[in-house]
Amino acid sequence: MDYIESLNWRYATKRMTKQKIPTEKLDRILEAVRLTPSSYGLQPFQVIVVEDFGTREKIFPQAFNQPQILECSHLLVFSAWKEISYQKVEDYIQLISKTRNVSLESLEGLKKNILQMAKNNTSTQNFQWTSQQCFIALGHALFAAALEQVDATPMGGFKPEGVDEVLNLEEKGLGSVVLCALGYRDLENDKLVKLPKVRKPKTEMFIWI
Amino acid sequence: MDYIESLNWRYATKRMTKQKIPTEKLDRILEAVRLTPSSYGLQPFQVIVVEDFGTREKIFPQAFNQPQILECSHLLVFSAWKEISYQKVEDYIQLISKTRNVSLESLEGLKKNILQMAKNNTSTQNFQWTSQQCFIALGHALFAAALEQVDATPMGGFKPEGVDEVLNLEEKGLGSVVLCALGYRDLENDKLVKLPKVRKPKTEMFIWI
Repeated sequence: MDYIESLNWRYATKRMTKQKIPTEKLDRILEAVRLTPSSYGLQPFQVIVVEDFGTREKIFPQAFNQPQILECSHLLVFSAWKEISYQKVEDYIQLISKTRNVSLESLEGLKKNILQMAKNNTSTQNFQWTSQQCFIALGHALFAAALEQVDATPMGGFKPEGVDEVLNLEEKGLGSVVLCALGYRDLENDKLVKLPKVRKPKTEMFIWI
Repeated sequence: MDYIESLNWRYATKRMTKQKIPTEKLDRILEAVRLTPSSYGLQPFQVIVVEDFGTREKIFPQAFNQPQILECSHLLVFSAWKEISYQKVEDYIQLISKTRNVSLESLEGLKKNILQMAKNNTSTQNFQWTSQQCFIALGHALFAAALEQVDATPMGGFKPEGVDEVLNLEEKGLGSVVLCALGYRDLENDKLVKLPKVRKPKTEMFIWI
């Protein structure tokens, strides 16, 4: 299947079958998330991969009882850094130095730039910025899932504070940003399965200059 | 090439050759953008596809003279709605009704939900929300470009007001959110070409529950 066909195949699955995704497929989807580019390459987020049913039962009411939370195979919780701390930036600089075998001195400029940006912004602005990086990664996850013929439903409708509490995200310095349920469509019970996809025509989406 | 290999092949290209992307490839990348899911399916953004060199010369100083602006084939300017107006929501509801051949009455609930959300939020919050949808689409663009073996550089470092002015975005009700240069890597002049990709290991990226 061509990738455009895969993207047409996917849709925001409302009902899933509880069938489990094979490990290899899940691993590749997560690898696509890990490879997502981010601003400065900082990757200022983590993804909580929730398979445990008891935990999903606790998230369920925080996400307005949407059935995918319980019927998916795995629930991804994209969670952004609440703060851009000196230590986190330092860890990143160390990672570049190690991966590329370059001196820490040569990375001083990058380090200062990131720290300066974080300092110039309010906490709220920094969290907005780290959250944006989650959405790029969400785009990668949805695309990879479509290629794997795994259904994926992005979900913005949930109470972030509630999900943060269930997953103890605050103590990890994280805040939940967006959810993505991975699983398989329930052909019998999902009314959306047979409906045509609604997308704006190209003429409305793009402006050519 | 497997899609994971393609994602490993891509990198934040700093220098490009000015070579043009074949139309079919550009069309498919844009189709992946158009098919990107969005919250409520609203697609509250447009993408300005800038090929015109004179326009890119004007954008160049607004993007801190980054050479990709001039050396790319096409520059995508992801631009989000500044306001979620009644008319825009109404147009979307009409589009669903037409595409799926369902009554407008059956879509009243959805329409009210979107308008209520927009009303409950400040203009700034609504623009944050429409901007987030741009980042999901950016994720799709980067992924599709990698599959097409087209280089793509996401760029957050630019002055939004300056770019808005060059492209007359304000009068279109849009604000620039993020740029993406599409083109081909300059193997001789891009120092980053041969450097290994820096990414956090899985153990730091994912938390399993």
